[in-house]
Amino acid sequence: MKTIKDVLMNIQQVDHSRRNDIQAKLDDLTKPQGSLGRLEELAMRYCLITGKDKPVLNKKIIFTCAGDHGVTKEGVSAYPSAVTPQMVMNFLRGGAGVNVLARQAGVRVIVVDMGVDHDFEPAADLEIRKIGRGTANMAVGPAMTREQAEASIMAGVGLVEKYRDGLDIIGTGDMGIGNTTPSSAIVSVITGADPELVTGRGTGIDDASLKNKVSTIRKAIAVNRPDRSDALDVLAKVGGFEIGGIAGLVLGAAMCRIPVVVDGFISTAGALIAAELCPAVKEYVIAAHRSVEIGHRKMLERLEQRPLLDLDLRLGEGTGAALGISLVDSGLRILAEMATFSSAGVSEKSTEQVVS
Amino acid sequence: MKTIKDVLMNIQQVDHSRRNDIQAKLDDLTKPQGSLGRLEELAMRYCLITGKDKPVLNKKIIFTCAGDHGVTKEGVSAYPSAVTPQMVMNFLRGGAGVNVLARQAGVRVIVVDMGVDHDFEPAADLEIRKIGRGTANMAVGPAMTREQAEASIMAGVGLVEKYRDGLDIIGTGDMGIGNTTPSSAIVSVITGADPELVTGRGTGIDDASLKNKVSTIRKAIAVNRPDRSDALDVLAKVGGFEIGGIAGLVLGAAMCRIPVVVDGFISTAGALIAAELCPAVKEYVIAAHRSVEIGHRKMLERLEQRPLLDLDLRLGEGTGAALGISLVDSGLRILAEMATFSSAGVSEKSTEQVVS
Repeated sequence: MKTIKDVLMNIQQVDHSRRNDIQAKLDDLTKPQGSLGRLEELAMRYCLITGKDKPVLNKKIIFTCAGDHGVTKEGVSAYPSAVTPQMVMNFLRGGAGVNVLARQAGVRVIVVDMGVDHDFEPAADLEIRKIGRGTANMAVGPAMTREQAEASIMAGVGLVEKYRDGLDIIGTGDMGIGNTTPSSAIVSVITGADPELVTGRGTGIDDASLKNKVSTIRKAIAVNRPDRSDALDVLAKVGGFEIGGIAGLVLGAAMCRIPVVVDGFISTAGALIAAELCPAVKEYVIAAHRSVEIGHRKMLERLEQRPLLDLDLRLGEGTGAALGISLVDSGLRILAEMATFSSAGVSEKSTEQVVS
Repeated sequence: MKTIKDVLMNIQQVDHSRRNDIQAKLDDLTKPQGSLGRLEELAMRYCLITGKDKPVLNKKIIFTCAGDHGVTKEGVSAYPSAVTPQMVMNFLRGGAGVNVLARQAGVRVIVVDMGVDHDFEPAADLEIRKIGRGTANMAVGPAMTREQAEASIMAGVGLVEKYRDGLDIIGTGDMGIGNTTPSSAIVSVITGADPELVTGRGTGIDDASLKNKVSTIRKAIAVNRPDRSDALDVLAKVGGFEIGGIAGLVLGAAMCRIPVVVDGFISTAGALIAAELCPAVKEYVIAAHRSVEIGHRKMLERLEQRPLLDLDLRLGEGTGAALGISLVDSGLRILAEMATFSSAGVSEKSTEQVVS
C-alpha cells in the first residue's frame, strides 16, 4: 500500500526551463507586454506546472471535503454540528453557494465525507472516505490518532488518483461546523503566531464566544503540545479530517502535476500541512482569495502566495476556488485565443521613442 | 434634439427603500449572513439600481470606444497611432483581449469609432459615431471644441438608448493610442492632484518619455486652463472623443437604470466626467478593477468606488469590465439559485451560544 512517504518522493519541483518560450508567446499577443498582469502570470504558472503548451481547461473538479469536530462541544461555533450533514445534502442537491459558482465556472463539485457525524446513503458526486464520525475534542486530547491523520491525507491523495485522467485543474473546498478552530490552531502552531492573532469569528460568533474560542485553542495547544516540525503530528493533535483530506488533495495534485486552486482559511490550513510535509507543493498551489479570517494572511505568507481575489468571502465550501478557477481559465484563454501582432497586422512598440 | 441637460434631468437617485427586503432574501440563503461578501453587495446594488427582484443577466454588452489623440505628436506613447485602427480591426475579428474575456463571460463586444483617424467600412458590431479624425494636440490648444465634447457624450447616451431593450448590464472599454495622457490630465484637473502624481507609463514608456509625458500634461493644462467646475470644459480642453463617449455611456446607463461596469484608467476618466456632470451616477457605476496606472486610485476615491479586482491589469479595451461583469453575474446567481434554510432543511444560527 502506498504511504505518504511514497507520495512525497514522487513530487517534483516545477520545471522552469520553458519560461522564456512561454513568455515569448505571451509577448507576441496583441497587447502591451505584461498588460494583462496576473492573468498572464496564471497562464505562465499553469504551463510550467503541467508542461503543456496551449492548455484548455476541460475537466475541472472542486472537491468539497466535509468533517465534524469534537471541539464544537466547547461552544466555538455559531451553528450546531447538525449543519455539517445538512449542508452535505444541500451540496448534493446543488443548492449551496459552491454549487452555484461552480456551475457558472463549468466546474464539477464532488463532495467528500471525510468524517461527518452522520451516515450518508451512496449518492452521485459523493465520495465516502470517512475516517471517523467527527474528531475528538482537541481541548482535552488529540483530535485524532497519527494513523487517522495519515489516512485522511491518503484519502485526499486517493481522490486525485481516482479522477486524474484528463483532469485539468483541481479546486479545494471544505464544510465542517467548528473547523475554523483547528485551522487557527494549525497556523498558530506552524508559524508560532499567538492564537489571538490568527483566530477570527468564523461563521459569525460574538465577542464572548471569540474569547472562548481563543482560550479553547490555547488549551488545545497546551494539552497536546503538537510538534511544529512534524506536520502530521500537528494535524493529528489539533487538525480535522477534512483538513487532512485537503492536505492530501494538494499533495496528490502536486504529484500528478495538476494545478490546485486553494479556497479560503480552512483549505489553506490543509495546504499548509501539505507544504510543511513537502515545500515543493507551494508551486502547485494557486491561492484563490484572501479570506476575512484574520489568520489567513499568515498562512498565505508562509505559502508564499499572493491571493487572486479579495472579495470579503468567508463561506468556504470551495466558493472562492470556483471564482479562482475561472480566472485561471481567463489566463489560458488569453494564451490560446488572442491574435498575435503578425497575424492581426498590428504594429509593435516603437523601438525608438520620440521625445519632443 | 435631446441635450445633455435633458439627460441629466432624467437621472434619478437610486432608490434604497427595498434594501431590507433584499437583505432578508440574501440572509435566508444557506450560508452565514454576509459570508459571500462583495458578491452579496453586487446582488444588492444590482437589485437597487434596476428595481428588479431576482434578476438574471441575459443581454450583456461591452462598448469599446476608440479614438485617436493629437497629443501623440508629443511622443507620449510607446506605440504609433496607426495601432488604434489596427486594434479596431482586431476587435472586429474577435482576436483582442477584450474579445477573449467577453466570450468567456457571455458578453457581446460592440466597437465604437468615436474618433479614429481612419475611415472604417461598416461592419457587424461596429458603431461609427465619429466626432472627428482624432483630437487636436492639447499641448498647443484645446483637444476639441465644446460642441464636439457635448456631441461625444451624446453619442454614448445614444448607444445606450439604441441597445437598451432588455439590456441587463453595460461594460465600458477604450482603445486609443495616447489616451492615458488625457486621462491623467482629466484626473489632475478635477482632483487638483499634481500631474506627476497621476501620470503613469501607459502601454510601457521609459523614464525619459514619462518625464516628457508629465511635462506635456502640465503644458496642456497651462495652455488651456480648463475650468475644473465645468466638466464639459475639462473634456473639451484635455479630453478625448472616446472618453466623452464613455462618459455618455455612464450617463445613459444611469438614465436607463442599467448598472455600468467601468473598466480601468481611461474608462474611469469617462466616468469621472459623467459624475462631475451628475453626482448621482456614482451609484450606477461598478468599478471593475484597480489599474496599474497610478492616477486610477485618485479617480476611484473621487467616485467613491472600491474596485472589485486587483490583478495588475493595464490593457483597457474593457478587459477588466468583462471580468467584473462575471462577478456581478456571480452575485445574481447566488441570489437566484441558492437554496434557503427552510427549503434545504438546514438549521439556522443558534440564537444562544454555548460558552463553555
